[in-house]
Amino acid sequence: MAKEITSRSENYSQWYLDIVKKAGLAENSAVRGCMVIKPLGFAIWEKIKDYLDAEFKRTGHVNAYFPLLIPKSFLSREADHVEGFAKECAVVTHHRLMNNPDGSGVVVDPAAKLEEELIIRPTSETIIWDTYRDWIQSYRDLPLLVNQWANVLRWEMRTRPFLRTAEFLWQEGHTAHATESEAIEEARMIHDIYADFVENVMAIPVVKGVKTASERFAGAVDTFTIEAMMQDRRALQAGTSHFLGQNFAKAFDVKFLNDRNKEELVWATSWGVSTRLIGALIMTHSDDDGLVLPPRMAPTQVVIVPIPKPNDEILEVAQHIAEKLRQKGISVKIDRDMKKRPGFKFAEYEMKGVPLRVGIGKRDLEKGVVEIARRDTKEKQLIALDKVSEFIPALLERIQQNLYERAKNFRADNTHFPDTWDSFTSILEEQGGFLYAHWDGTEETENKIKELTKATIRCIPLDQKEEVGTCIFSGKPSKGRVLFSKAY
Amino acid sequence: MAKEITSRSENYSQWYLDIVKKAGLAENSAVRGCMVIKPLGFAIWEKIKDYLDAEFKRTGHVNAYFPLLIPKSFLSREADHVEGFAKECAVVTHHRLMNNPDGSGVVVDPAAKLEEELIIRPTSETIIWDTYRDWIQSYRDLPLLVNQWANVLRWEMRTRPFLRTAEFLWQEGHTAHATESEAIEEARMIHDIYADFVENVMAIPVVKGVKTASERFAGAVDTFTIEAMMQDRRALQAGTSHFLGQNFAKAFDVKFLNDRNKEELVWATSWGVSTRLIGALIMTHSDDDGLVLPPRMAPTQVVIVPIPKPNDEILEVAQHIAEKLRQKGISVKIDRDMKKRPGFKFAEYEMKGVPLRVGIGKRDLEKGVVEIARRDTKEKQLIALDKVSEFIPALLERIQQNLYERAKNFRADNTHFPDTWDSFTSILEEQGGFLYAHWDGTEETENKIKELTKATIRCIPLDQKEEVGTCIFSGKPSKGRVLFSKAY
Repeated sequence: MAKEITSRSENYSQWYLDIVKKAGLAENSAVRGCMVIKPLGFAIWEKIKDYLDAEFKRTGHVNAYFPLLIPKSFLSREADHVEGFAKECAVVTHHRLMNNPDGSGVVVDPAAKLEEELIIRPTSETIIWDTYRDWIQSYRDLPLLVNQWANVLRWEMRTRPFLRTAEFLWQEGHTAHATESEAIEEARMIHDIYADFVENVMAIPVVKGVKTASERFAGAVDTFTIEAMMQDRRALQAGTSHFLGQNFAKAFDVKFLNDRNKEELVWATSWGVSTRLIGALIMTHSDDDGLVLPPRMAPTQVVIVPIPKPNDEILEVAQHIAEKLRQKGISVKIDRDMKKRPGFKFAEYEMKGVPLRVGIGKRDLEKGVVEIARRDTKEKQLIALDKVSEFIPALLERIQQNLYERAKNFRADNTHFPDTWDSFTSILEEQGGFLYAHWDGTEETENKIKELTKATIRCIPLDQKEEVGTCIFSGKPSKGRVLFSKAY
Repeated sequence: MAKEITSRSENYSQWYLDIVKKAGLAENSAVRGCMVIKPLGFAIWEKIKDYLDAEFKRTGHVNAYFPLLIPKSFLSREADHVEGFAKECAVVTHHRLMNNPDGSGVVVDPAAKLEEELIIRPTSETIIWDTYRDWIQSYRDLPLLVNQWANVLRWEMRTRPFLRTAEFLWQEGHTAHATESEAIEEARMIHDIYADFVENVMAIPVVKGVKTASERFAGAVDTFTIEAMMQDRRALQAGTSHFLGQNFAKAFDVKFLNDRNKEELVWATSWGVSTRLIGALIMTHSDDDGLVLPPRMAPTQVVIVPIPKPNDEILEVAQHIAEKLRQKGISVKIDRDMKKRPGFKFAEYEMKGVPLRVGIGKRDLEKGVVEIARRDTKEKQLIALDKVSEFIPALLERIQQNLYERAKNFRADNTHFPDTWDSFTSILEEQGGFLYAHWDGTEETENKIKELTKATIRCIPLDQKEEVGTCIFSGKPSKGRVLFSKAY
């Protein structure tokens, strides 16, 4: 089974595609750039949704749903936004098909042309702020803390499952506030929620920071980001939270009467994470034998495999273990298949990233033990039957921690602090990774570095230390290091 | 507040629109026929999703996600399906906008015309069965029990929030089976799940039955339906489950090797309920003061209102009651607003359908009681403080039962068994309601009756009694009564 996937060292990009396919996470569809998310991939998305949705609700947000289609003219209301989003998108021009007069299937009915074309949402700021105009009259209507779980579509030319697809699933929060400081606080709070979730649940360490002007969301005043390092040492932007200032309130004329009865423009944020997180999850933890899932993200945390095949005695023991674990909130599957051999099953569960495998054999049972195998380290050990239900929850916690530590160590090993242009470019070329380096703060230098090396400023880290230095490219003065990397 | 909505007797249709608007459930968007589902409306949809999703999973189904866009040619593969769905739909013809050369915003880039037009899914049988071809090789791959929660779009000419909108949210299950009997069993099991959910959770009594050939889903062999009676005595189809035979397997060439190594076509079902259920919920229970929600569907089940306004002592009692109720799984809101008056608040919570209101006043507290008001009957009673946390859960159960019984009695009062064409037409004209009548079983008669009276055969009830009679229209022999009604 493991032989079926390309190794990371041989071809990292093919390794990723092999895992997506062989673990049954997703596949390409008949529509260019649109993927089918298969049951295991979707179950991982449900984990992400459930955790984040609870966090959003805990912090006072409510869900709503806004239309899929947006009038074309809405996109041009906010000047920066149109540059960013009104380009590659799906345009609906007609609303009817008809039988082809020549009898060969269906064709578009030319009589059903829309007066104004509609765009499939690439993001929903415009339609939402057009709606908020009616929802907000007074400071009593604020803050408005709304999120939606939805599909969006951007006509991407080069696509890869989860990482970049035309259609993808995401959540987009859109909040409205009476004051600038409250909106900034909201954007930062969500930034924290994203970082905590990705680190503690997905076991992916992230750098928290702010985007430079040229890397900001189209229409934002500030974009807060979390950046993770993949196993090929490239950065992946895992979530963003935007402080939008009053840009969308201006564009859609959304004003409120403040508590002194004076009219003001509303302050805004928007924020989102998407099915891209599944790509980050795969590329952070998986290995040459398949998917590796941190226990908190695993739809099935423990699989019990009777050896060599299920019989009444073994199934009874399996059932007993499963019940005890389920009482502790652990998801357990008992493999009752009679046809496949244990070796085949083991490889299959490894490929699908089940964190723990419990093997129950006849001889082991006689000795009162079962074999427990970890997916992350491949270690196996025999555990006494009466200890299993205590041992497994603790082991799952250790696996969760181990995956996080492993990723964090990998990142540390591949983080550099070059001080010269030569060392900057040679590290980038030979090793890649995260490069903290001095920058003079100009867009000109940023663009030049990108052009020459393909590395971008991933963020200005929130924990940036004040440190006098000189820009690695221009030699001009700098007050602190920013994070450069090649990125997805 | 109550004065703000039109009464049912005055204008039922306007009453419905008023409730949708005043209770804050949904509103029209800038895109014709597409609604914005507001937070309260969406919270009700989340209740529906959570209950049904758990039922689907309990019965072995998994979720997945298939593309929003479908190649135009897919729709014409299944002959009946194309007639039903390839007409009024949104057609994507281009994938790019560009700045208008005259500087006036954005226009469609004529160079970005798609080779084949794409349709926004009106339902997903075609793209899913095109995908299943690769997923199914052997009987070991069956059954395939997949569901998706998604948005779909049908270009409706006349729309009403929830009941009929261009875009709506739904779940669509698509299963594949090795045998005809297993597929039929699946379609019937889902039919039961729908009926049980709508009756026991939504408190809406339904008639379970099978559609006649002319009312079937486009491409189905059999359509199982649940039909509910609204307060204007019209029927609403609340959910359908289809046995699709081998129609889609034929159209998309989906075959499997059976356990005797022989190639066979796969058997299929599909089934769905949508945001339309929210329309049914509103129209079954609500009254002239606003929304009425059965407790199992209410996002907030109990609201505690300090009278005349919150103070420390009252809030402490409120907090104490809320905690005890929350421990029992009841959702409670404490109204901490200092500005609005109690009367205004009462009307507002009535409008929004909160099942129970607990009023806590200073004088009541001195007597050790609080006032509990039911939304369904408007009854109020004083309850001793130390009994409240026992009393409320039981009362919520009674409200749930009462709403169901009330709807069931209403349906019984408006159900008729006419035996002649005269009484059939006069009942329909003067009273409406459900009419169980004999039918000769021909499409010709069915169409004629529809043409003359606008009543359709909602279903052939599953519990139809064998009863010799003569068709109310043609006078020809009939073996049992079918359910006629005007419908949404």
